[in-house]
Amino acid sequence: MAIQVAVCGPRDCTAEEESDAREVGRLLAERGAVVICGGYTGVMAAVASGARSAGGTVVGVLSRADREGAGPDLSVVIPTGVGEARNAIIVNSGDAVIVIGGSWGTLSELALAMRRGRVPVVQLGGWRLLDRDGRPLAGARHAASPEEALAATGLWPG
Amino acid sequence: MAIQVAVCGPRDCTAEEESDAREVGRLLAERGAVVICGGYTGVMAAVASGARSAGGTVVGVLSRADREGAGPDLSVVIPTGVGEARNAIIVNSGDAVIVIGGSWGTLSELALAMRRGRVPVVQLGGWRLLDRDGRPLAGARHAASPEEALAATGLWPG
Amino acid sequence: MAIQVAVCGPRDCTAEEESDAREVGRLLAERGAVVICGGYTGVMAAVASGARSAGGTVVGVLSRADREGAGPDLSVVIPTGVGEARNAIIVNSGDAVIVIGGSWGTLSELALAMRRGRVPVVQLGGWRLLDRDGRPLAGARHAASPEEALAATGLWPG
Amino acid sequence: MAIQVAVCGPRDCTAEEESDAREVGRLLAERGAVVICGGYTGVMAAVASGARSAGGTVVGVLSRADREGAGPDLSVVIPTGVGEARNAIIVNSGDAVIVIGGSWGTLSELALAMRRGRVPVVQLGGWRLLDRDGRPLAGARHAASPEEALAATGLWPG
Repeated sequence: MAIQVAVCGPRDCTAEEESDAREVGRLLAERGAVVICGGYTGVMAAVASGARSAGGTVVGVLSRADREGAGPDLSVVIPTGVGEARNAIIVNSGDAVIVIGGSWGTLSELALAMRRGRVPVVQLGGWRLLDRDGRPLAGARHAASPEEALAATGLWPG
Repeated sequence: MAIQVAVCGPRDCTAEEESDAREVGRLLAERGAVVICGGYTGVMAAVASGARSAGGTVVGVLSRADREGAGPDLSVVIPTGVGEARNAIIVNSGDAVIVIGGSWGTLSELALAMRRGRVPVVQLGGWRLLDRDGRPLAGARHAASPEEALAATGLWPG
Repeated sequence: MAIQVAVCGPRDCTAEEESDAREVGRLLAERGAVVICGGYTGVMAAVASGARSAGGTVVGVLSRADREGAGPDLSVVIPTGVGEARNAIIVNSGDAVIVIGGSWGTLSELALAMRRGRVPVVQLGGWRLLDRDGRPLAGARHAASPEEALAATGLWPG
Repeated sequence: MAIQVAVCGPRDCTAEEESDAREVGRLLAERGAVVICGGYTGVMAAVASGARSAGGTVVGVLSRADREGAGPDLSVVIPTGVGEARNAIIVNSGDAVIVIGGSWGTLSELALAMRRGRVPVVQLGGWRLLDRDGRPLAGARHAASPEEALAATGLWPG
């Protein structure tokens, strides 16, 4: 079975996040990884577009029970119908989780991925977390570029 | 996007159901449809095996949060972690739902597919349902063979 | 902790089913059981009404993420937002499951309750199930009245 | 129907968080609010204990499909069986959401509550969030004590 990488990010994103997401999608597809994403617009559409441009497989795990709003570059659509509970399904589906940019929904995916605890979680941009004493939390690995994000997953050593 | 067909059936199945499931998987893959199934043994493994033998894409929507017990012929694995609630996700993912054989889990999928009500539901063998007056329920379309099951979906008109 | 009984049934029901549901709710509340139901109209509203008339606690486990359509007699509302997947949650919440009347959604709850397999499942009216050879399935216990339904749960011996 | 307040917090918590949670539970019960929580140990058990000490109703929305590990002070148990996806259900169930302390699971609940966006979200201690430019996020209302937390919900004006 192919490696699967969940890529999470907001509907409303900056141009830089969109560009990063497209590049992450392209790089994942080049390495033969299946991309799992939320299936809608913004970062989700950009990572799908990038992966498809390189001939990759992209699965959109939708919150809705139908395909309304699903992006055009998905290979497979899973209209879960479970609402935001689908965020837990997305992060369960990755051998690694890459988070690009920030939003409340995206933060919930980052948190659920860390809660799951069995796979590398990589943040590219986005929000920062401090513990109760104001110190940066030891959490996701931080990457400064799409290439670094893939390297930080540790899935493709050397 | 490719047509997606959800195929449901029990872990414990007869040799005939297993053979039917393999043939349904093969025929779906030949028509370019993506197969969505539960991802474990029995009918689920047989439909996956049939689809893969014809070069098709098979998505296993698992009840567990990890890949334990997932079959060897899945192209993509979605370890939902939502238990039997994943049955609703499987039936939401099909442009048609084909049910092969009978079990309580399978019956829940048949019922959820009929409840959804927007797509053709086809039964190949399996259990029968009577209304409160003992009359056969107008429900799923019944097929007597894998070929008839695909025809009954109406997705590939003549 | 109080005994919890899940009561399932259709939105559209006969007058007899509504009357049975109200009586089941009343009898459960009299025995101190918490009633878990789907929280909307029909059988769901009737069992809630019966239970509240006897001072009982009724939990409505809703498919929607908000309270729209929730009945007036619920003590607690859980707007799951997971759609029909909430049917699995309802049946998981009962020390016994009582099914009144028939519909596709109700059948999915009966099937999920039997699939769960750890608690008594009692049918009061509703649909009938035959195996692949046309024989009645050994499944839920059948009851002919609300009193019999409670007795058939085995939760209140002697 | 009674006001419902979801109270979220980690299994592993400090003595102060446990004490705060117990007091929040007590104060909510005194105001007649139903407490919705995750049903296990730590902050969840403490809020349940506080609410029960004041005669309140406490609903434990469990990740597991059975009651294993459920706390002793729950009035009602909903063993969802949907794993961490149940976090979305907890936050959907509150007219307000109070978050005490920090953990990855707790952060996912805070994020899902903010994502939901229709109800007040109050943080008592716990983690801090910065946006991509390192500025504190406009997010949950912050409270310094259990009394302030209840006041910050705005549910009991003056």
